Amino acid sequence: MAPPDQQPDTPRRRPGGRTSRIRTQVIDAVRAELAERGYDELTIDGVAARGGVHRATVYRRWRDVGGLLADVFAAAGDDDWQPPDTGSLEGDLTALNQESQDSMTAQPPLVMALFAASFRSEEAARGVRRLWEDRYIRCEAIVRRAVGRGELPEGTDARRLLVAATAPVYHHLVLLRTPPDPALPADAARTAVLAARAGAFVAG
Amino acid sequence: MAPPDQQPDTPRRRPGGRTSRIRTQVIDAVRAELAERGYDELTIDGVAARGGVHRATVYRRWRDVGGLLADVFAAAGDDDWQPPDTGSLEGDLTALNQESQDSMTAQPPLVMALFAASFRSEEAARGVRRLWEDRYIRCEAIVRRAVGRGELPEGTDARRLLVAATAPVYHHLVLLRTPPDPALPADAARTAVLAARAGAFVAG
Repeated sequence: MAPPDQQPDTPRRRPGGRTSRIRTQVIDAVRAELAERGYDELTIDGVAARGGVHRATVYRRWRDVGGLLADVFAAAGDDDWQPPDTGSLEGDLTALNQESQDSMTAQPPLVMALFAASFRSEEAARGVRRLWEDRYIRCEAIVRRAVGRGELPEGTDARRLLVAATAPVYHHLVLLRTPPDPALPADAARTAVLAARAGAFVAG
Repeated sequence: MAPPDQQPDTPRRRPGGRTSRIRTQVIDAVRAELAERGYDELTIDGVAARGGVHRATVYRRWRDVGGLLADVFAAAGDDDWQPPDTGSLEGDLTALNQESQDSMTAQPPLVMALFAASFRSEEAARGVRRLWEDRYIRCEAIVRRAVGRGELPEGTDARRLLVAATAPVYHHLVLLRTPPDPALPADAARTAVLAARAGAFVAG
């Protein structure tokens, strides 16, 4: 599901003035600090210094580390990410899982640092919840297209299918902490497709 | 998978002398401190005071918070837990998921506190990895019994089936942070059974 974008140094630049430029600098700095040094070392002063922004500006606009984290999650959801469109349900789910696995194993480990932060701060937990919700809603397009192609029955519950297809990848990397398994993205996708064809996600 | 036992106040008492009694007191104290106050407040002194054990003893034997956490995970795996045996694959997986969901939503939130700690400390991360591994190995009995009853083909990959069946429950509660869904334990079990019958977990 590629929760937050895994490339700390290439955020989307928006057209806009000084305010949006400062926000970009600050968010980039938070991501870089988190990825390289972790949540425990995250401070307003460190972010201001790294971002080249006056610390009074950062305190005024973001207040504290929680405010910074909340904005990192908000910015991550405020992009034009779209789920893969490969022409088949299994292809789309495999590509989606591969993207998630890549983002979770990228160096520096920004995505894992964001998961860790979400256990530390209520603002971060809310941010991660909203971001997941947004990502799963976007991914419903995968299921709609599959229904349109006749690959899935009408009435398939998109969310349940998407969670079944994606959960094993997160389970291994975030909870079980096993090394990345190159076969897992495709295996988990295929398993969900087989279950879907057997009617697992149709209500009733 | 009911990772660590969810009942901080009823660990297994072992026969044994003073050493094992002190270990029980200390581990109970760590669990209670974690569940009620969280990782950030966990200290050797707080654990010693709560457990009624001399702080020098705790320092000598466990050294630091990482050592205490490692022993909590070791103790959690050192029990006689067995997976549910209901007479059917779907029944066993549903009961297993229900047990996990109950342990993750129990108050005080010890299991969630242990997950959070596993993002903070390398010792805790290793501990949680070993505990999962132990639990999944014990759960292979569910798959063996189902193969024996003819519910599943020979050659079914037990681990892949078990991860598919259990991952959605953890995904919702630990990562997505959605409220517990009473239908999910059975839904996720049924989905995995349908996939298994369709051959999802047989190599080749």
